[in-house]
Amino acid sequence: MPITPDQQAEIDAQRGESRQTLRATVPGMEAHLYKAHEVLDHGFVRVIDYMGDDSAIVQAARVSYGRGTKAVQNDAGLIRYLMRHWHSTPFEMCEIKLHVKLPVFVARQWIRHRTANVNEYSARYSILDREFYIPAPDQLAAQSKQNNQGRGAVLEGEEAERVLRLLREDSTRAYDHYEEMLSQDGQQGLARELARMNLPANVYTQWYWKVDLHNLFHFLRLRADAHAQYEIRVYAEALCEVVADWVPLAYAAFEDYRMGGVQLSARGLDCLRRMLRGEEVNQDSSGMSAGEWREFKAIIDG
Amino acid sequence: MPITPDQQAEIDAQRGESRQTLRATVPGMEAHLYKAHEVLDHGFVRVIDYMGDDSAIVQAARVSYGRGTKAVQNDAGLIRYLMRHWHSTPFEMCEIKLHVKLPVFVARQWIRHRTANVNEYSARYSILDREFYIPAPDQLAAQSKQNNQGRGAVLEGEEAERVLRLLREDSTRAYDHYEEMLSQDGQQGLARELARMNLPANVYTQWYWKVDLHNLFHFLRLRADAHAQYEIRVYAEALCEVVADWVPLAYAAFEDYRMGGVQLSARGLDCLRRMLRGEEVNQDSSGMSAGEWREFKAIIDG
Amino acid sequence: MPITPDQQAEIDAQRGESRQTLRATVPGMEAHLYKAHEVLDHGFVRVIDYMGDDSAIVQAARVSYGRGTKAVQNDAGLIRYLMRHWHSTPFEMCEIKLHVKLPVFVARQWIRHRTANVNEYSARYSILDREFYIPAPDQLAAQSKQNNQGRGAVLEGEEAERVLRLLREDSTRAYDHYEEMLSQDGQQGLARELARMNLPANVYTQWYWKVDLHNLFHFLRLRADAHAQYEIRVYAEALCEVVADWVPLAYAAFEDYRMGGVQLSARGLDCLRRMLRGEEVNQDSSGMSAGEWREFKAIIDG
Amino acid sequence: MPITPDQQAEIDAQRGESRQTLRATVPGMEAHLYKAHEVLDHGFVRVIDYMGDDSAIVQAARVSYGRGTKAVQNDAGLIRYLMRHWHSTPFEMCEIKLHVKLPVFVARQWIRHRTANVNEYSARYSILDREFYIPAPDQLAAQSKQNNQGRGAVLEGEEAERVLRLLREDSTRAYDHYEEMLSQDGQQGLARELARMNLPANVYTQWYWKVDLHNLFHFLRLRADAHAQYEIRVYAEALCEVVADWVPLAYAAFEDYRMGGVQLSARGLDCLRRMLRGEEVNQDSSGMSAGEWREFKAIIDG
Repeated sequence: MPITPDQQAEIDAQRGESRQTLRATVPGMEAHLYKAHEVLDHGFVRVIDYMGDDSAIVQAARVSYGRGTKAVQNDAGLIRYLMRHWHSTPFEMCEIKLHVKLPVFVARQWIRHRTANVNEYSARYSILDREFYIPAPDQLAAQSKQNNQGRGAVLEGEEAERVLRLLREDSTRAYDHYEEMLSQDGQQGLARELARMNLPANVYTQWYWKVDLHNLFHFLRLRADAHAQYEIRVYAEALCEVVADWVPLAYAAFEDYRMGGVQLSARGLDCLRRMLRGEEVNQDSSGMSAGEWREFKAIIDG
Repeated sequence: MPITPDQQAEIDAQRGESRQTLRATVPGMEAHLYKAHEVLDHGFVRVIDYMGDDSAIVQAARVSYGRGTKAVQNDAGLIRYLMRHWHSTPFEMCEIKLHVKLPVFVARQWIRHRTANVNEYSARYSILDREFYIPAPDQLAAQSKQNNQGRGAVLEGEEAERVLRLLREDSTRAYDHYEEMLSQDGQQGLARELARMNLPANVYTQWYWKVDLHNLFHFLRLRADAHAQYEIRVYAEALCEVVADWVPLAYAAFEDYRMGGVQLSARGLDCLRRMLRGEEVNQDSSGMSAGEWREFKAIIDG
Repeated sequence: MPITPDQQAEIDAQRGESRQTLRATVPGMEAHLYKAHEVLDHGFVRVIDYMGDDSAIVQAARVSYGRGTKAVQNDAGLIRYLMRHWHSTPFEMCEIKLHVKLPVFVARQWIRHRTANVNEYSARYSILDREFYIPAPDQLAAQSKQNNQGRGAVLEGEEAERVLRLLREDSTRAYDHYEEMLSQDGQQGLARELARMNLPANVYTQWYWKVDLHNLFHFLRLRADAHAQYEIRVYAEALCEVVADWVPLAYAAFEDYRMGGVQLSARGLDCLRRMLRGEEVNQDSSGMSAGEWREFKAIIDG
Repeated sequence: MPITPDQQAEIDAQRGESRQTLRATVPGMEAHLYKAHEVLDHGFVRVIDYMGDDSAIVQAARVSYGRGTKAVQNDAGLIRYLMRHWHSTPFEMCEIKLHVKLPVFVARQWIRHRTANVNEYSARYSILDREFYIPAPDQLAAQSKQNNQGRGAVLEGEEAERVLRLLREDSTRAYDHYEEMLSQDGQQGLARELARMNLPANVYTQWYWKVDLHNLFHFLRLRADAHAQYEIRVYAEALCEVVADWVPLAYAAFEDYRMGGVQLSARGLDCLRRMLRGEEVNQDSSGMSAGEWREFKAIIDG
């Protein structure tokens, strides 16, 4: 259970106080504010603040008061045009601030996205909670045989049990020893900044993460993708639902052009045109490597 | 006059519509929203949106739900501590979006601050307005004799008149010719993206500029400084007033530690300690160059 | 003539002194170093320094000493894989430093790419040269009728002559007055930081620009594109030739996947698959807007 | 022992091949290239490449060919001037690429510096080595009593032994189980991306890290500081030695103005001036909080 009664009371208090503002507001986001969207076994995503809406994107694209830009074009069309032509700056005019609780190994992937603002819970300064990510049985996957960086079939029987037991026992023991080393009961007590090194990568941390919509879309394209590791993908999917409520027009364009869109190489485009003219094209005549051809076929065959 | 009646009507409309929100609001900023703060002869700064307040800085520093961080310390003290020790990430949790109208040569200085989001009025796409910055007589300064990069005394008499006349006539003529080249009246009409090259650097442009508080403070430290060029300093000063209303505790700390603070070198610190012990120190015994010694004396003498 | 005899002598001196290094070197880049590649009427691009080569990209991808990564795959294949799957960080391991001389209106577009290091010639501090970009007759284009942001046919006859005359005369007069205002001959002399505001956007400036290969590719994708303004495109094209000599494998992948590649939306992909199955698809049955359908047809028809 | 014989052979091979270049070279850095500077019990820092030298900073500041900038001033003086006045862009013209091996909890602090390029060894893709940081006995410190975020006295006797034993045993067991879960011997074998979650934060990782000199100085100011955690400070100190050999003038200025320099608030400066005029100032009459006064006294008393 990721949210304690105390935390829930705090959330209720935050949601209880409404104020007047002249800024743009989005009812769909007001409904999300402060609430914890549960992810994995102890994680969550909470929207703490947001700036802008679909209109803010349009407004930035038109740069207020500009004359030549008053072409008759509706907002959805303009937003689709911006997305299609990689005009990224108008999407940067929207900003979101999140509170995220997540396992450390997920946090380490997440932080590779550098264009964001982060304040993480400090294990130098504070003591981490006894909370560890233990995969659900249906996520306990074997190493992929095709892909060095992927998962294969789900582990079964004794092997699955043994893995779960090891993960649980090692986490528990590591945390017991963490507390034992920190304890000042009859001893000096190890410094927090040192004791934390005993904790495994499935321990939960938390942070405030603030990012603009363009960079959030970039994050979602990579992390909500089918090839992303499951444990970060579930965070990305939770965020997709939030973004769809925040900027519905931009999110629809993102789904069409980024999540559902594909990139073809010059070589792939040439093959495609030949196929549309009725020519038979195979890997040999495509000029592609085996891997590229497989990916190309997957795209056009669906 | 920077604001036309149409624009004022638009501002009034934006200010006329109040909504409910669960987000943090700042009454002082609500009062600023959309209004045009006039700067120079045709420029302005308008607050279009903001995210966060002093509490958001504190909250990020404490990272919500952290235990070790619940030390009894009031918000002002914590914010001063963060500023003093260069903890910049909590200040990044606040964000502001501005609409700015400014001469091109000011925009060129401004844009050197790269950590911000910008959407500028496009002169490839649209036609610029006939508005040029002409310095007020008390800002028509001579080249400094001491400083390659500074101003000396104010120009006077005929020279001042001649300069103002040249600036005015050249601006007017450049714009007349811009329009003449663009005109499709009895001719093809030059492309906008080419015609704009005839306009001088005192023509006004405008943009949306969105930045986090940490980077805004960095901008203000450099641009509200006495050594900044007057024409950008007046924008920075207008922004200082806005920020003081937005995050009063953070702004007070910024004034004390950054704007009013000084940096001493190891060498300067050594001199200072010797002086406090009663020793006479001069340039020779300081180990400093003439320039450094002059700057050091200015700091300690006030 | 962009390069003066003095400058050429300086370049010759820089090219005359060879040193030993243990770092990666690229013969093709050594041949470029310091030389001025002329662009437009007075501009140039010079390579001042570079870091890394194709192997540095491969090495970063494999992160030296890693075991699982020793799969047998040649460098070209790995680089193509990285480009195809948007793995951008290995390309960031290469860096280039350029000296560029360019008109101010081109510099203003260029600087919108924020992830780079820049040191520009300061017109607050120094006096700009009397050099202005005047388009060649075949680049004196009319405003496009289809596209607010594009060029149409080349201007002809009297109109062309008049435009060229206006551009030349206004530049000359603006510079004459710039000098007149600056002059300290019998007068105080206006501050440089003010006098520069009289100069039009076709005056040349120069800067050092340092960028990593990933961000350079992003710049080239946008600025070497057929829709980019001609005056920045010629700089991008000059850089493409440099990059092809620097990292030939990466550049070939960039050409195939980025410059020559295309992006299809989910909707476009669906149409394509239907067409490959023999179905007739037109705008109505595509679900696309007129603009999207036009762009889609252009892609598949070639 | 951080470097295996194989790795040493690779380093020797890299150092064995010298090439000609027209680029700036620094003999002091050529001596560092590829060599492993050992840090902690299994870590290292290796210089893989560098761009620029002290002259590159000067050259960027003067922006080649600029007239007004030819003031007679030697390189050391100009570099000191730039550092003193926070002119950061010339320092950005130098770049360094490092190969670093470091414990994960150090990597997590390090990566908070976002303005750099990183390629880290992937534990999704590859298998991590059995190497863990175990503090030397003189670094096994108790939690500070004054400072939530610091270390107190060194642990002694039985407590020290117990802590070391726990850290060693838990690391060993975690790695044994990591291998056991990964094993495909008579079982499917858990996916690498999952198995890694069992490893504690003292396991070693490695990365390529590329950064410009300005941002490296910022990193060093924070991480070579006495308040930084020991385990990252030793990396920063190793880097300080490298940088001193790379750009000796810039490093000397950095030492004087940043590492050895101090920041005084407006309030602190006021107190200082009063003291220099002979006035007795204490905390009460200073207007400072207890904490600020303590820090102020530490600065001026030395």
